[in-house]
Amino acid sequence: MPTRLTLRLDFETGRRLGPGKVALLEAIGSTGSIAAAGRAFGMSYRRAWLLVHELNRMFDRPLIEARGGGRNGGGADLTSLGKQVIALYRSAESKMRKSAGAEVKRIERSLATSD
Amino acid sequence: MPTRLTLRLDFETGRRLGPGKVALLEAIGSTGSIAAAGRAFGMSYRRAWLLVHELNRMFDRPLIEARGGGRNGGGADLTSLGKQVIALYRSAESKMRKSAGAEVKRIERSLATSD
Repeated sequence: MPTRLTLRLDFETGRRLGPGKVALLEAIGSTGSIAAAGRAFGMSYRRAWLLVHELNRMFDRPLIEARGGGRNGGGADLTSLGKQVIALYRSAESKMRKSAGAEVKRIERSLATSD
Repeated sequence: MPTRLTLRLDFETGRRLGPGKVALLEAIGSTGSIAAAGRAFGMSYRRAWLLVHELNRMFDRPLIEARGGGRNGGGADLTSLGKQVIALYRSAESKMRKSAGAEVKRIERSLATSD
């Protein structure tokens, strides 16, 4: 199935979690830096920081923790809750792909082949 | 589960189908009018027409057919493919909600209760 299925969550609190924020979290985990993670998505430093702030306020504990100071101006790590939220979101996505696969294949069959 | 789960499809052709377009299709079906359906979402007539045009080109047959002329300037109907695409998308969404429910409930439990 070549179609990409994406999941967005709109919480009762008015906050949202979708593919953009989750990808940013993953990139912070792999780069250890909010700035580097933002750059990977063509995001300004300010924009990445604002998203991190929003993500941290969305949950009852932070998802990202800044490491202070040091030669390279510190960095950032995912907390255990941060890792858990990523894992749960990716697992939900994967289950969604399996369960909705038949419908999506039927939609694909009626797509125009050229533009 | 108070969280709303939304599905977005990114097709290999570069086209997308998500909650906005599907809701517009449904509104065309219930109002029999592209203009009225657009108004229901605060959309300009032009914007609604462009989305209809895009939806019709996305598939190998049209999803929406204009009814010509008449006293009220005609109207629009969903084709059988239009109805089928809506039904398949809504069924995929409903399966997704069931299959990803446990993960979403676990994410909900860590949400901050107040802003």
